[in-house]
Amino acid sequence: MDSAVNDRQPLRVALLGAGVVGGAVARLLTEHADDMAARVGAPLSIVGIAVRRAGRDRAALGVDPQLFTTDAEELVTRADVVVEVIGGIEPARSLILRAMEHGASVVTANKALLAEDGPALYDAAARHGVDLYYEAAVAGAIPLLRPLRESLAGDEVRRVLGIVNGTTNYVLDKMDTTGAGFADAVEQAQALGYAEADPTADVEGFDAAAKAAILASLAFHTRVSGTDVYREGITEVTASDIAAAREMDAVVKLLAICEHSERGVSVRVHPAMIPRSHPLAGVREAFNAVFVEADAAGELMFYGKGAGGDPTASAVLGDLVAVARHRVGGGLGPGESSYADLPVLTMGDAQTRYHISLDVEDRSGVLAQVAAAFADHDVSIETVRQQLVPAHAGESARANLIVVTHTASDAALSSTVERLRTLDVVRGVNSVMRVEGS
Amino acid sequence: MDSAVNDRQPLRVALLGAGVVGGAVARLLTEHADDMAARVGAPLSIVGIAVRRAGRDRAALGVDPQLFTTDAEELVTRADVVVEVIGGIEPARSLILRAMEHGASVVTANKALLAEDGPALYDAAARHGVDLYYEAAVAGAIPLLRPLRESLAGDEVRRVLGIVNGTTNYVLDKMDTTGAGFADAVEQAQALGYAEADPTADVEGFDAAAKAAILASLAFHTRVSGTDVYREGITEVTASDIAAAREMDAVVKLLAICEHSERGVSVRVHPAMIPRSHPLAGVREAFNAVFVEADAAGELMFYGKGAGGDPTASAVLGDLVAVARHRVGGGLGPGESSYADLPVLTMGDAQTRYHISLDVEDRSGVLAQVAAAFADHDVSIETVRQQLVPAHAGESARANLIVVTHTASDAALSSTVERLRTLDVVRGVNSVMRVEGS
Repeated sequence: MDSAVNDRQPLRVALLGAGVVGGAVARLLTEHADDMAARVGAPLSIVGIAVRRAGRDRAALGVDPQLFTTDAEELVTRADVVVEVIGGIEPARSLILRAMEHGASVVTANKALLAEDGPALYDAAARHGVDLYYEAAVAGAIPLLRPLRESLAGDEVRRVLGIVNGTTNYVLDKMDTTGAGFADAVEQAQALGYAEADPTADVEGFDAAAKAAILASLAFHTRVSGTDVYREGITEVTASDIAAAREMDAVVKLLAICEHSERGVSVRVHPAMIPRSHPLAGVREAFNAVFVEADAAGELMFYGKGAGGDPTASAVLGDLVAVARHRVGGGLGPGESSYADLPVLTMGDAQTRYHISLDVEDRSGVLAQVAAAFADHDVSIETVRQQLVPAHAGESARANLIVVTHTASDAALSSTVERLRTLDVVRGVNSVMRVEGS
Repeated sequence: MDSAVNDRQPLRVALLGAGVVGGAVARLLTEHADDMAARVGAPLSIVGIAVRRAGRDRAALGVDPQLFTTDAEELVTRADVVVEVIGGIEPARSLILRAMEHGASVVTANKALLAEDGPALYDAAARHGVDLYYEAAVAGAIPLLRPLRESLAGDEVRRVLGIVNGTTNYVLDKMDTTGAGFADAVEQAQALGYAEADPTADVEGFDAAAKAAILASLAFHTRVSGTDVYREGITEVTASDIAAAREMDAVVKLLAICEHSERGVSVRVHPAMIPRSHPLAGVREAFNAVFVEADAAGELMFYGKGAGGDPTASAVLGDLVAVARHRVGGGLGPGESSYADLPVLTMGDAQTRYHISLDVEDRSGVLAQVAAAFADHDVSIETVRQQLVPAHAGESARANLIVVTHTASDAALSSTVERLRTLDVVRGVNSVMRVEGS
């Protein structure tokens, strides 16, 4: 790490809120302090964390207890960047506007506020010459703001279909995979923490509608507020709707749909059937995804976790680096930021798993010899499956042995295969394939 | 459109290359001139297009024929931004370096050059205080550069699994879905234009290896070149490998794998089995996708078209807007760029399709009455399916009628459903669901 970076004047960061997201932001800011300083070009220093009530034990956040304050109004006047993760309309709105008036850039995860009053906030940011970033407000950790506003800035987005509420996706997924009714599926979601005790904001589509307004604003470079969004929740979706979808080779998803035609924009949230062959159909459990159709780019999809402390904090920190970097030295291009020089490992050092299919003699002791070859190279076997192969006349009995290993170094795995090739009981190696993604 | 923007001093754009991508860039730059001017804050003016041979008919590009030049070396000295879409190492490298020396920012789609000599180019850009953007170099239209470098700047990426070569994904997908062997699948891909006459660069993994080097550099903020990448192509993948994967409930994909552990980075390209439940398993045909595992964000995936003139041009233009905006007024934040005020349509105006399941009397004339209700509202029927429902004792004969419509306005569709409810022959409406994504 470049020590010159840490000698620079630190950027003052004020954090509003110390709940699940705020706590994760504080913790990650501390853990990744060096990396973030390198990426920003100056260290980031938390100058205060505004909380509603003093005195609660927040030792787990790992920050100086003296940083906690109940006077958010004062805190925002002495920061370069204000991170707002309180949520709700007030006092979040007043604090953000006050921060901007005092020259601070703002990072927020507040979908309700952006959906209700986004244009006023954008205008205030422009008036005071500060940044307003809000990646975390839609689809949590999934990067959408930069892709939609910057990567596609030379294209025209025609349509956005989003699964932007994890609770409802979990409920609909359970209804699809288990045949459960709506009420049962909601109960399951509550038991696993995917739905709140009062799930109204999710299941009635209010949360998705706020996100749809922000998505449409981003995608079409226009102003859409939450009240412009047509909204239907999933409370009326029945097991027979799900069954009807299944017969159509489709699934039911709660979609946020933003369309741009010559007549204007249409923004709506409602359950809809989509074909199982569509990329959105494979979005399972509480995951989110946003499918984008653009004139030149064609079909794009962005997939990931839509909620949770760490995923949301990841998005907040990405924004924080951007606005902080902007403060320090103007916008740095992607080719210009500082580089680490990490060692590059050889293929032999790579950790992977092998799937090996062997043609072996069918007699006692074969498995023992094969297993020994693995053990000698410290490769642990996950599963072995043996299939008899019908022998031709005059041939000795044969079997097909399929071995899937646990993770090991590629060097150990390939040496194991070399050894297997030399065993008398192995008549041939049919297939060797690495296994990834599990 | 703000006319003041068009009165500003135009940014001078030099285009190197007028092939499939260059042609699409020139055309889209002209078609979207007003939108791009608004997003940049000044008009973009093509000052020249460097081609290898003069005199070819390029009328289809829709640009002034006088702009074509064979003197690329001269052209790059009189531009604010140089867009390089020639490909290959030379003369692309010399021209890019020369452009930077003369103070121009550079946008390039050149994966081979970046994989071979990325660090030297980044250094040159930093030395001359210009931007170097290269979104189009990996996975075509899929936004990766900004998500990996900016959105995840406050997170730590641990692992990247990418399907970054459309040709090999098409070939493996055909082998999986049709049982074809490697040679047959390559022939199919060639017939459809997904593989070149000499498919070596794709099927041997050279193209994917270059992209893996760029992906690793982006994801881990380090320097990885193409020669650091272990590479195995798909020429050895057999129908029996594919069958073995199928038995494991897995598919075979050519993966670009970048991993960051305490020991360093590992970058490799080889075929691997991945479980069908993994999001990458659903990436079909010639599509690309990049799956990212980050500490805080968790699992993310980016999906889209990896090649083709328009998709690649979309990525180039996104970069062009970014570097041009940077020239005009410093980096504008996402909340600050200009807004359109597009009209927001009502739900009744939204165009959608309905899936309607009806409980009807089973007697002649029922379908005619139902069909008339659709026709009266100008709603066109795509499919009708009728199922007999076993009648209980004493009940009249019943049937289940499932209608899927073509696209119509939501107002017309919902009026149709209201009418259906009033028909004597309709005993009940079981399910009404919109259909999207087809």
